[in-house]
Amino acid sequence: MLDRIESPVREHAAGSLDPLFSPASIAVLGASADPLKIGGRPIKFLKAHGYGGTLLPVNPRGGEVQGLPALRSVAELPWGVDHAVVALPASAVLEAAQACADRGVKAMTVFSAGFAEVGPEGAAMQARLSALARESGMRIIGPNCMGVMNFRIGMIASFAFMVDLGLPRLGRTALVSQSGAFGGQALVMARRRGLPLGAWVTTGNECDVEMADCLAHFARDDETDVIMGYMEGCRSPDRLVHALALARERGKRVVMVKAGSSDVGRAAAQSHTGALAGNDRVFDSLFRQYGVHRADSIESFFDAAYAAGSGKRITEGRVGVFTVSGGVGVLMADVAEHEKLDMAPLPQPAQDELRAMLPLAAVRNPVDGTAQIWSDMALFRRFLRTMLREGRYEAVVFFLTAMPYSPPLQQPLAEIFADLRREFPEPALVLSMLAPQALQDELAEHGYLMIEDASRAIRALSALRALSRPSPGPADLASLPRVPHFPALEAANEHAAKEVLARVGIPVLPERTVADPDAACAAAWELGYPVALKVLSPDIVHKSEAGGVALDIADEAGLREAWAAMRERVAQAAPRARIDGMLLAPMAPDGVEMILGVQRDPVFGPVVMVGMGGIYAELLDDVSLRIAPVDAEGAMRMVRELKAFPLLDGARGRPRADLDALVRAIVRLSVFAHRHADRIASIDINPFRVFEAGRGAAALDAVLLTREPEDGGHA
Amino acid sequence: MLDRIESPVREHAAGSLDPLFSPASIAVLGASADPLKIGGRPIKFLKAHGYGGTLLPVNPRGGEVQGLPALRSVAELPWGVDHAVVALPASAVLEAAQACADRGVKAMTVFSAGFAEVGPEGAAMQARLSALARESGMRIIGPNCMGVMNFRIGMIASFAFMVDLGLPRLGRTALVSQSGAFGGQALVMARRRGLPLGAWVTTGNECDVEMADCLAHFARDDETDVIMGYMEGCRSPDRLVHALALARERGKRVVMVKAGSSDVGRAAAQSHTGALAGNDRVFDSLFRQYGVHRADSIESFFDAAYAAGSGKRITEGRVGVFTVSGGVGVLMADVAEHEKLDMAPLPQPAQDELRAMLPLAAVRNPVDGTAQIWSDMALFRRFLRTMLREGRYEAVVFFLTAMPYSPPLQQPLAEIFADLRREFPEPALVLSMLAPQALQDELAEHGYLMIEDASRAIRALSALRALSRPSPGPADLASLPRVPHFPALEAANEHAAKEVLARVGIPVLPERTVADPDAACAAAWELGYPVALKVLSPDIVHKSEAGGVALDIADEAGLREAWAAMRERVAQAAPRARIDGMLLAPMAPDGVEMILGVQRDPVFGPVVMVGMGGIYAELLDDVSLRIAPVDAEGAMRMVRELKAFPLLDGARGRPRADLDALVRAIVRLSVFAHRHADRIASIDINPFRVFEAGRGAAALDAVLLTREPEDGGHA
Repeated sequence: MLDRIESPVREHAAGSLDPLFSPASIAVLGASADPLKIGGRPIKFLKAHGYGGTLLPVNPRGGEVQGLPALRSVAELPWGVDHAVVALPASAVLEAAQACADRGVKAMTVFSAGFAEVGPEGAAMQARLSALARESGMRIIGPNCMGVMNFRIGMIASFAFMVDLGLPRLGRTALVSQSGAFGGQALVMARRRGLPLGAWVTTGNECDVEMADCLAHFARDDETDVIMGYMEGCRSPDRLVHALALARERGKRVVMVKAGSSDVGRAAAQSHTGALAGNDRVFDSLFRQYGVHRADSIESFFDAAYAAGSGKRITEGRVGVFTVSGGVGVLMADVAEHEKLDMAPLPQPAQDELRAMLPLAAVRNPVDGTAQIWSDMALFRRFLRTMLREGRYEAVVFFLTAMPYSPPLQQPLAEIFADLRREFPEPALVLSMLAPQALQDELAEHGYLMIEDASRAIRALSALRALSRPSPGPADLASLPRVPHFPALEAANEHAAKEVLARVGIPVLPERTVADPDAACAAAWELGYPVALKVLSPDIVHKSEAGGVALDIADEAGLREAWAAMRERVAQAAPRARIDGMLLAPMAPDGVEMILGVQRDPVFGPVVMVGMGGIYAELLDDVSLRIAPVDAEGAMRMVRELKAFPLLDGARGRPRADLDALVRAIVRLSVFAHRHADRIASIDINPFRVFEAGRGAAALDAVLLTREPEDGGHA
Repeated sequence: MLDRIESPVREHAAGSLDPLFSPASIAVLGASADPLKIGGRPIKFLKAHGYGGTLLPVNPRGGEVQGLPALRSVAELPWGVDHAVVALPASAVLEAAQACADRGVKAMTVFSAGFAEVGPEGAAMQARLSALARESGMRIIGPNCMGVMNFRIGMIASFAFMVDLGLPRLGRTALVSQSGAFGGQALVMARRRGLPLGAWVTTGNECDVEMADCLAHFARDDETDVIMGYMEGCRSPDRLVHALALARERGKRVVMVKAGSSDVGRAAAQSHTGALAGNDRVFDSLFRQYGVHRADSIESFFDAAYAAGSGKRITEGRVGVFTVSGGVGVLMADVAEHEKLDMAPLPQPAQDELRAMLPLAAVRNPVDGTAQIWSDMALFRRFLRTMLREGRYEAVVFFLTAMPYSPPLQQPLAEIFADLRREFPEPALVLSMLAPQALQDELAEHGYLMIEDASRAIRALSALRALSRPSPGPADLASLPRVPHFPALEAANEHAAKEVLARVGIPVLPERTVADPDAACAAAWELGYPVALKVLSPDIVHKSEAGGVALDIADEAGLREAWAAMRERVAQAAPRARIDGMLLAPMAPDGVEMILGVQRDPVFGPVVMVGMGGIYAELLDDVSLRIAPVDAEGAMRMVRELKAFPLLDGARGRPRADLDALVRAIVRLSVFAHRHADRIASIDINPFRVFEAGRGAAALDAVLLTREPEDGGHA
């Protein structure tokens, strides 16, 4: 029901994750004296990285574990330990978890594998773990996960051996991965890329704490600016929407990878996660709605998060490029145009000033200092200062080739770029160069982003822009129209479907159902010729293909002829179809043919769809989707996302279409779909014709399929 | 003329580049005792890298240069030195070059800057250098270049300091760069990426030797398999086409970067190269025609060349993916689908076999061993062997995360993968992993490709497939139809244009020019109603917009009415237009509306174009281009490249269009355009309507614009 539409930015009922990420005390169940063992590593890591809380190894043999006195059982733990790490065989986990809950443990990380991922028996154990979490209020992360790290306090509750390779720099980015394998990889990549992390967590089988809960945790966390999410599937769409809304509200920058955009990928994801994959494009639109940047590769995931971590904002998209190799400048301009960044030229006086310094330079943007600029580092400095001062770019990329390897250049480069950063603290500055590590580290310290590949540098800035711009956020619930409730929703044929739509407020033509040619002629006389005649049958979905449509009937003779011919064609094409009569309608004015629809996503429930009609558009799959309901602004965004939007907007001398009428229809359809989510299987309005601006629109054909409601279905 | 169409695989007149790349003797003009100076570095490099030929420093002060006796002047050189390296100020270059030519020097590399890149004076000097090369036969590379390297013989005729950082591994890939700055960068990247190079050359200002000549040289070179080209502009399109045709014929794999695909990029390229940029899509189609893989970033340029260097072939595109992290497998499947690679599932028995080994594994493809596979390396080995044996993939990517950093895994991994390679020598095998350098080097030695990012690994395989597939190559000249020659080509209006097209063999409707309504009625009676009436004027290009088109006229009354109305509309819209009368045509049958055209590319001359008609197609810019002439196969490829090709091919129950008629028209138009290249400014056939298969096609409207021929214009 409409009244059940709630703002996604509401607090979630379950307990806080603070004990998980910032525990004052940690117990390790299955603690091992061997720092190479799974039960030994977290103790080793916690000690090595200076965790300052109470560390309590639990081992039935007691004695000493890595220099710490071991407790023999959970029962010996002090009351109310914050975080218990479980490195026990799967068979021992449930009992241990119960014992922990009984001792008031607040949160638990379960490394152990052997649960839902191994089959029904494991799934049953996992279900009991879930129930325990629910009943006791003890939060459980895992099982089958790699654990949790909060670098700020040396809290390394993980057995990932990658910790031994060294930790990433400390920073304000949190990484949440459903995959442990990817989590380990990410740890190494972050260190190598110089991407500073504040926290790291892998959620494994998600018996209780889901990825979405961790996203929400970091959305609330004042020490986190950027959240990286590696998502394989979504268990609780509500929690995900909640987390994204919260992150948006708190101004966090969220970068996500979610695989499964292709058919093969989707099939693999389905088999991999065991969860319903859902329509990938719905995720896409959800991410867009909440300002999440979706990366399409691991590399661009890291590039985007790295750029986001700079804290810089790019709202206009004004990007300057300096190169010492013209061709690479051109390549970067190509990428920038593709990414719709604005490579605004320098103002003419600045161009003149640069040209006076270096007559051979290209001075517009991309600015090419040419190889000549290396011969005079004082000039190099003046040249770049002028470009930055006059260009007022939101971001500048410096492409320097491998020249910074030249020993005599290194000191001057370090000084010039350090000074530039001091003089111009505002813009995002990216160095794209091959250079000795020491020089790179020094300039990274000064706040330069280091992205070696020139094209990736531009794409990272594009991601930064996406993350800097305001996103639409949740629909404005107050603005949504009320639609009637249909206690027994049923629409056996086109006419019934259109009657429902009309009551919902979606425009239809004044049609008549007619039982015989005389009635048809009477109706046509009333409506005015030319008219359209269509067969009405619950059994014929594709009327045209069954010969059940006649258009542009000019007069009574034509109508009688069309009636007879249609009866015959339909009888032949669909001999067993029940015929409810015919539908007689006036011919609609010209307009743009659209398709409106509702589909039921297995993850997110009712999804509203708008697309261009016509075979060309269908071929290119030019549609856009949103989780219902959408407000007018959201509907307008859907329409603008269409590749063919210019056709609606008066491209090439065409009349501008009635966008308002289109938007109204989308909004009402979405509210209707949301309100009757448990009853609607799908709605297909095809075509939905949009007339010239000011003249409205009309559903010319419609199919509404209903379903049996389930218990606890989406609503 | 048609007779002037020559096969591009003909030998070029100018002298061989062998003395440049494989000199028996090298003179260094401006030789310096200081190994850091531009005139000192080549001597240092040549000595350090074991160049075995005669090395002759030339310095007016004589004495000893880096341990070698110096000659005082070019005149003291022995007769017929192969290669002179010139490290002199620009002002001294011409005289030195003349002296070299007089001493029978065969080839010369000019480092010196200060030529065409600095202005008219330098351009004049460069023109004299060009003339000297032409007249003497001495080949000149540069000026303003970074030189030439043939790693096989330690021939480092360059002053690039990057040589001091270490050379790449020796291999069978040649790199040709117009940019010196990029050349230096590429040297460092090749070394770091483990991309083995055989030769390296930068062509600078190209006063004589162009990039295309170097491409042709390596196309002929038996020690080169892969050619990397970094192109900023094309000076001699003939030489480029020749080089690409030669490379194709000799089975070389060519990977190119050419910037300038965007508008901003094009403008920057134009100002950067000073050359006419040409239409980037023409380059694109040229590359496709000759099987060149075009990379869109520096990174993918290296990835593609690196994969090409494996010598492996992927023709079907059957790719297997093994991962230890399901999500990344899905991500790779997404990329593979996008790249149209075939992630064929393993045969069912193989799937059963794998599942028997590891019940939790995903066994279809992508194959996910899950984290569990690490716990038993014997199983790991059996599992991969089965996958490779039964999958019979052309390429397999192994995504292993950072697990290979785990010390106990390194030895087993090294052994397992070495054994796999021995057992399965055929497929391309790619390791996508984070691992210690030693392990990476060891497995690279065994013939594994190392591509860290999983998505890039898949894209590299896609590039390898593009490079493995046969490309169409030059048009089959023997198959091209003859078209008449028009000594004085002129087409003042639509009717005249169609008459020309009809003589060329492009179908048009039987139209009549009529001077008054009576003549129109007579003609309509002859042709049969319904008819179309169009105004005929050399001054009205957009007839519809001037009200000069009336369609579907049903009878004589309608025709007279249409005539009168049109006269009035046109007189109002274009009062000063000369009216040559009206054009009366029968209405054409239904069909698919296409656009055919000829444009004149500033680099390549006449280019033939085919596109879908209709505003949607126009919006999406759904056209394909080729340098004229094209044969039937080429024309068919153009048509298939269209996004909307399925609409022609009978998609969604539509009738299949007469593709043969369309192809014939494209071929004839292209031959006509080629034959009259010096006279045709542009041709625009819009619409060209293609009827149902077997029913032909017709140009329904046409504009042919002519131009004054230039001396030496394209023909």
